[in-house]
Amino acid sequence: MDEFSFIESIKQHTYNQSSLIKGIGDDAAVFSSLSQNIVSAVDTFVEGVHFSKETMSLFHVGYRALAANISDLAAMGATPAFYLVSIVIPKGWSQEELLQIFNGMRHLARAYKMDLIGGDTVSGKEMCISVTVIGFTMKDKARYRSTAESGDIVFVTGTLGDSGAGLHILTHSNNYKEASYYINRHRMPSPRISFAIGLGHLARVTLNDISDGIASEANEIAEASNVTLLLNESEIPTNSSYNQFPVELQEKWKLFGGEDFELLGTIPPKDWDKVQQIGELTNTNVTKIGEVVEAGKNGKVILKQKHKSILLEKKGYTHLK
Amino acid sequence: MDEFSFIESIKQHTYNQSSLIKGIGDDAAVFSSLSQNIVSAVDTFVEGVHFSKETMSLFHVGYRALAANISDLAAMGATPAFYLVSIVIPKGWSQEELLQIFNGMRHLARAYKMDLIGGDTVSGKEMCISVTVIGFTMKDKARYRSTAESGDIVFVTGTLGDSGAGLHILTHSNNYKEASYYINRHRMPSPRISFAIGLGHLARVTLNDISDGIASEANEIAEASNVTLLLNESEIPTNSSYNQFPVELQEKWKLFGGEDFELLGTIPPKDWDKVQQIGELTNTNVTKIGEVVEAGKNGKVILKQKHKSILLEKKGYTHLK
Repeated sequence: MDEFSFIESIKQHTYNQSSLIKGIGDDAAVFSSLSQNIVSAVDTFVEGVHFSKETMSLFHVGYRALAANISDLAAMGATPAFYLVSIVIPKGWSQEELLQIFNGMRHLARAYKMDLIGGDTVSGKEMCISVTVIGFTMKDKARYRSTAESGDIVFVTGTLGDSGAGLHILTHSNNYKEASYYINRHRMPSPRISFAIGLGHLARVTLNDISDGIASEANEIAEASNVTLLLNESEIPTNSSYNQFPVELQEKWKLFGGEDFELLGTIPPKDWDKVQQIGELTNTNVTKIGEVVEAGKNGKVILKQKHKSILLEKKGYTHLK
Repeated sequence: MDEFSFIESIKQHTYNQSSLIKGIGDDAAVFSSLSQNIVSAVDTFVEGVHFSKETMSLFHVGYRALAANISDLAAMGATPAFYLVSIVIPKGWSQEELLQIFNGMRHLARAYKMDLIGGDTVSGKEMCISVTVIGFTMKDKARYRSTAESGDIVFVTGTLGDSGAGLHILTHSNNYKEASYYINRHRMPSPRISFAIGLGHLARVTLNDISDGIASEANEIAEASNVTLLLNESEIPTNSSYNQFPVELQEKWKLFGGEDFELLGTIPPKDWDKVQQIGELTNTNVTKIGEVVEAGKNGKVILKQKHKSILLEKKGYTHLK
């Protein structure tokens, strides 16, 4: 594969972002920030660890890698602007295969008017894709995990567990209801950008995106904010046909499955109406699932189930005495 | 290895950059730009392709990966500010080994007051490190490859071929003069940041950093600027003991070896004195090696040798008729 001609083939001929001064084609990209704040994150995906060609086309591999990164920008309340892609390609891969990955990213990038402004293509033994995203927020409007306060409402967007269910369907053939819905949620997650940006005028919103499972991200908020989150399991939203799966898998995907790329947040009760309105305006289901009940030195998450409460930890739970 | 405790161990406890609002610890990092321009690039290194544990310690692997990226910022005239690191770690690597890589990066980062603001650590089959750097330039002061004009002086910093010689010494044991000098140039290259920033007040400077060999980078300038570069081989600077190596290797490393991370530039003759002064002030040798002789639709590079001229192409040369 000729690296020069490949870069030429993925290079955008026109750019969307007015802040971009120089895109691909020099030692680095250059942009201005229009006196906003700049947000940047990176995420890496390795074949066989984070995805498999058996359950994903290369188009979906690219789509999902960028979606996961855009979801980090959503969790910061940032508007996506740019991405840089670094790919390790095993020998024997064709330029056509590589293009499919970039097509998947481009498809999603177009929806957000994001520009590809840099990258690197190197050869190696295993396929590995690393995406850096850059976005903007208004001054002092980035949303952190550390701002939750006692009395806040805890909410989540969309439905949880869908991505885990989708992967299960792809790897366990059977007759499932809404199979394509779940598969789509696994392969082409929807970062909640418009909803997160819609929250922009609110004074204080705590946000985190669900990439490792709500148990993990709720604990991140509890720890960063030094508060206790009290969640009601019965209120955690799932899709209408989600109960077709074995109960223990439902729980596993919903709490620990992750990769739904929904947003978990907390908000003062006075602003809850506004959050719901923004949800409606941006076609985003928003569900209250609990509250922030106390401040403490060690953040923790308690999940109220039907007949008991459990201490929800990042990778599992222990029963409360 | 516990990813959470590892991230904790590489996290900076204090940050240097006043523009940083939020470093590691949320979904993304946040910074402001103080109304300058922002420059960003990414580079990836794969074990066995870009480096080998036999010729480099892990400290040097980290050092060199960041140095290559900082060199891209130098070539843009940008002041380094932030870096994000994505690492794929093979099973069986210890946290201590990983720390050595980060120590190598940190060592260099400290010299430039750069802050580590994000990253990702995932497991895979082969070691792979991807570094994203972010820097700042004053408004409209980013330096491009595309601004060379007929009449310009072509210059280069430092000496060329040293990195190739260093790798040769590491892989061919023998008695060499200044062996540690060459090895050091290979393992711990010095990006020319202070020199590049020193050029800041000049109206027009064309810059490119030598990562693939001067043949490649001179052609990039010629193509991007639509000009012909006329270089004099006898003027290309090399280290005093460089003539100890076989003549064909001297030529190969100097023209095509790359990874010296020196700067190749062009400047109007009226500013050449200033460039030399900035070289002296920043302890950077600067050598005139040729001139921009004509503008044309297809950029090319001609190398004048003792008795003939050759057309220097990215990966080789052809004799001129």
